[in-house]
Amino acid sequence: MTQDWFLEKHTPYAGLTLAVRERLHTRNSEFQQIEVLETVEFGRMLLLDGFVMLTARDEFIYHEMIVHPPLLLHGAPKRVLVIGGGDGGSVREALRHASVEWVTLVEIDPAVIETCRRFFPELANSLDDPRAEVVCQDGFAYLDQHPDAYDAIIVDSIDPVGEGAKLFTTAFYEKVKGALRAGGVAVFQTESPFYNGEVLAQVNRKLTPLFAHVAPFLAHIPTYPSGLWSFTFASNHIDPSQTAPNQPPPFQGALRYFNVEMCKAAFALPGYIRESLGEE
Amino acid sequence: MTQDWFLEKHTPYAGLTLAVRERLHTRNSEFQQIEVLETVEFGRMLLLDGFVMLTARDEFIYHEMIVHPPLLLHGAPKRVLVIGGGDGGSVREALRHASVEWVTLVEIDPAVIETCRRFFPELANSLDDPRAEVVCQDGFAYLDQHPDAYDAIIVDSIDPVGEGAKLFTTAFYEKVKGALRAGGVAVFQTESPFYNGEVLAQVNRKLTPLFAHVAPFLAHIPTYPSGLWSFTFASNHIDPSQTAPNQPPPFQGALRYFNVEMCKAAFALPGYIRESLGEE
Repeated sequence: MTQDWFLEKHTPYAGLTLAVRERLHTRNSEFQQIEVLETVEFGRMLLLDGFVMLTARDEFIYHEMIVHPPLLLHGAPKRVLVIGGGDGGSVREALRHASVEWVTLVEIDPAVIETCRRFFPELANSLDDPRAEVVCQDGFAYLDQHPDAYDAIIVDSIDPVGEGAKLFTTAFYEKVKGALRAGGVAVFQTESPFYNGEVLAQVNRKLTPLFAHVAPFLAHIPTYPSGLWSFTFASNHIDPSQTAPNQPPPFQGALRYFNVEMCKAAFALPGYIRESLGEE
Repeated sequence: MTQDWFLEKHTPYAGLTLAVRERLHTRNSEFQQIEVLETVEFGRMLLLDGFVMLTARDEFIYHEMIVHPPLLLHGAPKRVLVIGGGDGGSVREALRHASVEWVTLVEIDPAVIETCRRFFPELANSLDDPRAEVVCQDGFAYLDQHPDAYDAIIVDSIDPVGEGAKLFTTAFYEKVKGALRAGGVAVFQTESPFYNGEVLAQVNRKLTPLFAHVAPFLAHIPTYPSGLWSFTFASNHIDPSQTAPNQPPPFQGALRYFNVEMCKAAFALPGYIRESLGEE
């Protein structure tokens, strides 16, 4: 039987291939090509410009890990900003925190939100929560207009190419800093430390002059390049190495990856990643 | 340009694909098909029956992580037994420990050792160390002949199919226990917890009646199924949750993945893995 296989090349010479049951949706927005495929192994999958953004089966790992470590380290975040992440997964996770009163999603491309409302309601339904607000705007401009406004800023960006590259600049990081309230925390998705260690290193070099505490952490995401993904935590007030939450937080609903042990363990870095960060 | 691509299906519907520069070697031994390919992204790669055993670029992760956590938790192992692992990578890592006086490799298939001596000298050269001994024999029989003989036993086995299935049985685990000296530790490779959580769970269920302390731990290995790999530590004397080495060990040579923080962090398990183990 001839089968339809999707291939994402993670480098010119290595890739992930997945059997496709059905190609459900293709659309070209002002910003990018948006596709939804039904894969056999990972369920529904969202692609932007041909790259895997999420799959139904493993999206919980990315979204739990980009949201819960920074929010738990903050302690009692009330106002949360998500930049990018038009699928709604990061908003869903932020809303699990009882302290959170308000979550703003700033996504530049309304077509991503529309597509996810249709094909990924288990993520995008979070955007209908009474505590959630959706703004379709450029993240740069939004940050300028909202100084000193958020306890936590989650930069759930695409890769640092094309439009996404703007979200990996010092100018952007300064704006994130300006939009944080006292005690605030920020987190950035920072690519695969195995294939793209230089991105992680560059982000860390740019954040270090701006924040007192900058710390990468890791999660294992099977459908992302190399299966290992990095995030970078930044704060002027909270040092992850000194702030180990040891109480289960008052979450709504069960988590499937994150737990308090992972919150600490995720900041332990293998030697080769420390090396690429210029440590040791 | 037409390029030669290798594909390993990790499930019938998902796989890793790697560009191949050259197919260097194919051989059918008494036990299996042995192949060596030169990949563009990961360098030389050893296949047994078509499955990736190791690549030059990421083998350090597997070998450092199957060896150093158990040896460091033991504290001062003198006699180490490696079952399987004919490539020599686990022996190489064990020999880095200054306390280690003797390492026995028991590999059933001499053709694996011969192939690795030729194509992977950076691993197999360890077998020429004056402290190393190579025995081509079935692991079961060897254990029977060597009761109460080793401080650490490293079960660097293939997958639990065919010949490899014997190394995932209670009968085998009893023999491992019998070959350990007082204070001894054992470690078993226990597959991908993402794709094969039931293997990890079964091994843990079989080991728990035999050892006072049984604890899985994890490492990220890009070329293995899902990119996440599990190992299971077992000991009657040493509890990993109570034994955190906080001194850099007296290693020979630099490590590239393992460090003392990873030794503790690797035992922190994501929620979905705890769940598949029947915890919580």
